[in-house]
Amino acid sequence: MRGAVLYGPRDVRFEERETPKVIKPTDAIIRISATCVCGSDLWPYRGIQAVAQPTPMGHEYCGIVEEVGSAVKSVKPGQFVIGSFFASDNTCPICQIGYQSSCQHAEFVGTAQAPVLRVPLADGTLVPTPEVPSQDLIPNLLTLSDVMGTGWFAADAANVKPGSTAAVVGDGAVGLLAVLSAKQMGAERIIVMSRHESRQKLAREFGATDIVTERGDEGVERIRQLTNGIGADSVLECVGTQQSMMQAIRSTRRGGYVGYVGVPHGVELNGEQLFFAHVHLHGGPAPVRRYLPELIKLVWDRKINPGKVFDMTLPLDQVAQAYRAMDERRAIKTLLCP
Amino acid sequence: MRGAVLYGPRDVRFEERETPKVIKPTDAIIRISATCVCGSDLWPYRGIQAVAQPTPMGHEYCGIVEEVGSAVKSVKPGQFVIGSFFASDNTCPICQIGYQSSCQHAEFVGTAQAPVLRVPLADGTLVPTPEVPSQDLIPNLLTLSDVMGTGWFAADAANVKPGSTAAVVGDGAVGLLAVLSAKQMGAERIIVMSRHESRQKLAREFGATDIVTERGDEGVERIRQLTNGIGADSVLECVGTQQSMMQAIRSTRRGGYVGYVGVPHGVELNGEQLFFAHVHLHGGPAPVRRYLPELIKLVWDRKINPGKVFDMTLPLDQVAQAYRAMDERRAIKTLLCP
Repeated sequence: MRGAVLYGPRDVRFEERETPKVIKPTDAIIRISATCVCGSDLWPYRGIQAVAQPTPMGHEYCGIVEEVGSAVKSVKPGQFVIGSFFASDNTCPICQIGYQSSCQHAEFVGTAQAPVLRVPLADGTLVPTPEVPSQDLIPNLLTLSDVMGTGWFAADAANVKPGSTAAVVGDGAVGLLAVLSAKQMGAERIIVMSRHESRQKLAREFGATDIVTERGDEGVERIRQLTNGIGADSVLECVGTQQSMMQAIRSTRRGGYVGYVGVPHGVELNGEQLFFAHVHLHGGPAPVRRYLPELIKLVWDRKINPGKVFDMTLPLDQVAQAYRAMDERRAIKTLLCP
Repeated sequence: MRGAVLYGPRDVRFEERETPKVIKPTDAIIRISATCVCGSDLWPYRGIQAVAQPTPMGHEYCGIVEEVGSAVKSVKPGQFVIGSFFASDNTCPICQIGYQSSCQHAEFVGTAQAPVLRVPLADGTLVPTPEVPSQDLIPNLLTLSDVMGTGWFAADAANVKPGSTAAVVGDGAVGLLAVLSAKQMGAERIIVMSRHESRQKLAREFGATDIVTERGDEGVERIRQLTNGIGADSVLECVGTQQSMMQAIRSTRRGGYVGYVGVPHGVELNGEQLFFAHVHLHGGPAPVRRYLPELIKLVWDRKINPGKVFDMTLPLDQVAQAYRAMDERRAIKTLLCP
């Protein structure tokens, strides 16, 4: 088969890779219905994160089970499944607490920009849909594999409750789905920091009530003005830079909550500043597996449409174009069809 | 009157200061029954925190109200009161949420190592006891002004629940009272990191079930061994150094909680490390005012004896000795009697 391989900064190739097969009895092989490019794929693509060797890419996936190992019990060939970007056994003490992305046997699933994928620990990782979905549901279901689950975790980690005031830092796909998640969890006011008209529009569609275009001190000041002078109850950080983290912490009211899901790059938090900010801070790789059953149901019942973040669709063999469009911010997120 | 004044590193003097009087209608003047030296007083005493000018000291206090301003309604002369080290109005939105130490009108109460003290915002800061307490209760009540309230906040911020496994980093007075707090909140297992026999003894008396003497990697490993290989549910950080913060974060299980109350000095947290640690982090100056009614009741009903952390008592005029004894770790905490 052919799949995406990153060679170095801005050098993604679509080339021959070995077709995956069952290696361990707990594996499943799935035929990908749709995959996509993640904002976090852009870190190595842009050379901010080093790539030591040619690296297969992709960690968002859904598709039809083709084959399962002898120990797999909960999914079977023919089923349509979605899994997390971290495979998990879903039985260890950390999984049982709901942090499957930190499973004691976690394995990163990183070769999904391809027609066929091996998923380890299939029983603990994959969740089947009630039946094979109609085509229009597939983009929505695909988002649950990472981007929607991550936005959901941002809102959950930021303790969004009915009536909360939430602010979202970042208008990428995760930020936009963090807006959708905050809305779904009952936030009364949702402020999104965005300077891009098309993203502002989608944010409003997902439930944003206010747009803040200012950044830094001015952005913090603007959020204070919108929140009775005290800052937001919940701030959802969806970028991962020093600037965005400080924006998030400083926009939160004392005693409020910061949920951060942007993978931090070069972020250092000053202890004293954090101490006097008096916020709750929680984040990390989203425990997508925990949320899958609930989110599948919301999509299945057509309550949410997270697939709207895909504003570009390309055949998988044009994966290099997909990266380029996102790098240049011409696309929010690109869906890839094998 | 005479009170404590810090001139510079290891130079505390007991000297003439102006006797406080009511300045604003919301003030109260109290005659101090007991005061003490705080671990955080040692930062400037040791020269780690600069002292720009001769500075009156002391922020832990209880005593009898002598006079109140014309606007004060909730306390009156003759009552025995305890207050937080941060005066608060207890009515602003931040106070209402329970973060009185970040009150929009917060004022640090920093001149308590003296016989008489002016407390601003008396209605929002002071809580009277049911009646004037007997002498033996005074050390217990004094701790509620900061050290016990701070240990309690560490346990609360670290989400200690019935059945939790808690670890405490730091065996100073705050750390020891964090043990007591974790016990009171129902922690089943309480591990304290300590190398000092007298402090280990008091920790056990307060409810510690395990003592860890190792630090750094070995300390983390030891806590893992004691917690089924995964780390503690709740870790209470009661020191404020880079080493203690990292000890705390690394000793927490994925998805667990770090409550940090040691005022950070020179602490920098790496964003990526924090992200993958997957912990909840919350701390800051303890909102003592929130806890005062509950903690006064526990002391009044003789359910807890936090005053046991005072292992030295001196007359106030020997305040310099009190600092020295704590600096040299000859005393856990020194009570001062005016």
